[in-house]
Amino acid sequence: MTTLSKVTPFLAANAVDAFLITNLHNVRYLTGFTGSNAVLLVLPDEMIFFTDPRYRLQTAQQVKERSVIAAGNLLKAVGALAARKKVKRIAVEESTMTLGEAELLRGKFEIRAASGVIETLRMVKSPEEIEKIRASVVLNSRALEQALKKAKPGMQEYELAAEIDYRMRKLGAESAAFETIVAAGPRSALPHAKPGNAKLEAGQMLLIDMGAMLDGYASDMTRMVHLGEPTKKYRDAYQAVLEAQLAAIAAVRPGRTGAQVDKAARDVLKAAGLGEAFVHSTGHGLGLEIHEDPRVGKSGKVKLAAGMAITIEPGVYLEGWGGIRIEDTVVVTEKGCEVLTTTPKELRAI
Amino acid sequence: MTTLSKVTPFLAANAVDAFLITNLHNVRYLTGFTGSNAVLLVLPDEMIFFTDPRYRLQTAQQVKERSVIAAGNLLKAVGALAARKKVKRIAVEESTMTLGEAELLRGKFEIRAASGVIETLRMVKSPEEIEKIRASVVLNSRALEQALKKAKPGMQEYELAAEIDYRMRKLGAESAAFETIVAAGPRSALPHAKPGNAKLEAGQMLLIDMGAMLDGYASDMTRMVHLGEPTKKYRDAYQAVLEAQLAAIAAVRPGRTGAQVDKAARDVLKAAGLGEAFVHSTGHGLGLEIHEDPRVGKSGKVKLAAGMAITIEPGVYLEGWGGIRIEDTVVVTEKGCEVLTTTPKELRAI
Repeated sequence: MTTLSKVTPFLAANAVDAFLITNLHNVRYLTGFTGSNAVLLVLPDEMIFFTDPRYRLQTAQQVKERSVIAAGNLLKAVGALAARKKVKRIAVEESTMTLGEAELLRGKFEIRAASGVIETLRMVKSPEEIEKIRASVVLNSRALEQALKKAKPGMQEYELAAEIDYRMRKLGAESAAFETIVAAGPRSALPHAKPGNAKLEAGQMLLIDMGAMLDGYASDMTRMVHLGEPTKKYRDAYQAVLEAQLAAIAAVRPGRTGAQVDKAARDVLKAAGLGEAFVHSTGHGLGLEIHEDPRVGKSGKVKLAAGMAITIEPGVYLEGWGGIRIEDTVVVTEKGCEVLTTTPKELRAI
Repeated sequence: MTTLSKVTPFLAANAVDAFLITNLHNVRYLTGFTGSNAVLLVLPDEMIFFTDPRYRLQTAQQVKERSVIAAGNLLKAVGALAARKKVKRIAVEESTMTLGEAELLRGKFEIRAASGVIETLRMVKSPEEIEKIRASVVLNSRALEQALKKAKPGMQEYELAAEIDYRMRKLGAESAAFETIVAAGPRSALPHAKPGNAKLEAGQMLLIDMGAMLDGYASDMTRMVHLGEPTKKYRDAYQAVLEAQLAAIAAVRPGRTGAQVDKAARDVLKAAGLGEAFVHSTGHGLGLEIHEDPRVGKSGKVKLAAGMAITIEPGVYLEGWGGIRIEDTVVVTEKGCEVLTTTPKELRAI
């Protein structure tokens, strides 16, 4: 199936002459272009790629589609070409096109807002995409092990976060996939804690949530490390989260919804008396972006299908005490799922 | 002058009842909020801040304005409150509001597109903002010196870039302000080179373009380092770029336009026979974002004013040979400008 044939059915089904793709992740997905400025115009018989002169060489190397190199705002060049092609109705991506951009097309074309068209295609990854996600996951795990060799009481949270990001980069990652979370002691109870000046102390729990971008694809992992001997309360809560995480992984298979997977984790934590402490969704899709469809939470209605890549990350958060989260990246297979993350999940103390 | 009084004249001048600010940098500028999800509704007599429940505590700490903590899409909460306030006409930021967001307001309000209102206020920095930029610039220079101790032939470009970013972070930066550029030899001729696997070799020129984000404010600096003894061609071109850079700095003063500053650099390079090799603008404003108004290039019509922070970064690029750029961050003063960057600009060989 060619890329064009994936998108053109949308044109006829929505009675538009063209579909303008402005979400850069979607442009990359359809063309392979990795630069920072491009749009793609889908017509019934061809896709036309637009970028600026900085990317002339890169376009020749990466993009097979007919290309237009345009100075200034790309939407002006799109409008001129679409007019020559007698386009009247044009669909645009409403979640990324700004009012200012739409103004450049308004009056010349009838604009119809479309949403989630390419994002829906992106949910099911090709074998090549899965291998890229796997490579990103493996790199991420290696970076954690290298960075943990430096972790010790007295180190500040942000220093360990910097060490993690450095190790990712030295291993070849383009960047971190999101701002690395290193949260010690009671600060781990904030699900989106920013690493701060707080020093790691013996006896503290340590939550590390990290992901890499490699060859354009994201990984995502959360691991707990205990600094010194853990308490019984920590052991019990850790065990409950681990069982919830394993239950959710066991629930992943084609045909199940994200909501069903979420419920599998939630039921375990409810039974352990920790239902109220699980304040977020069980997971999310990932790929070219760190957060993609499908949803893996209470509102997750999409049926999972082989090739979807998702995270499984239940957690419990007790204000004043701390938080425990365990997260893997998994890919849905024909019969269930494969956990890509290789880092062990046994309770770990250093 | 209170913040509210800076913005309310816009309401009357544009005959709107409210101004909805959705650009997160603008929200931060007006409220101090540093989180990742918020909008601000400006009414004639108050500003109302909206964010989601993750930021309840942070809002209490950072935001003085009346605050609404809303689950789900913030624009729905804005719409409900604006309706209660009898708002009819609402101005929105057309360069950041998407069609999908506007759809949530359409039908309920008359929407008017506004652009650059807060960005114009942001051009002139307060003394507190200038000190934040200065701190970012100083950190950036320290990170370069620390990283250069590791630079040597055999090291790959991306490794040196990772080292630079690591040093920034260890010195307390939130992040790099943009993807750090490390380009050796002929690759330095690409103004936006991404650091790659190429190894640094003795006899090569090395271009490093780097900036830090510290306390929300950006710095930006480019320096050249020569690996071993430079050729006469390199020395001559370096001297021409340095003279162009110093001429542009000397041209900065209140009342001058960005175009005039640009011409000062361009004239020197033309006289040196390198006019054609200077393929970009002389600089740009910076602050909460790495690229802000005013423009410092051929199209820079804004008159500079004391308190504006800009970069001065002429360069020459010769395909197959290499590129030379020298960049400082400067702030416009009453009588001229102050160069914030402390890293020396003499020709440097290591």
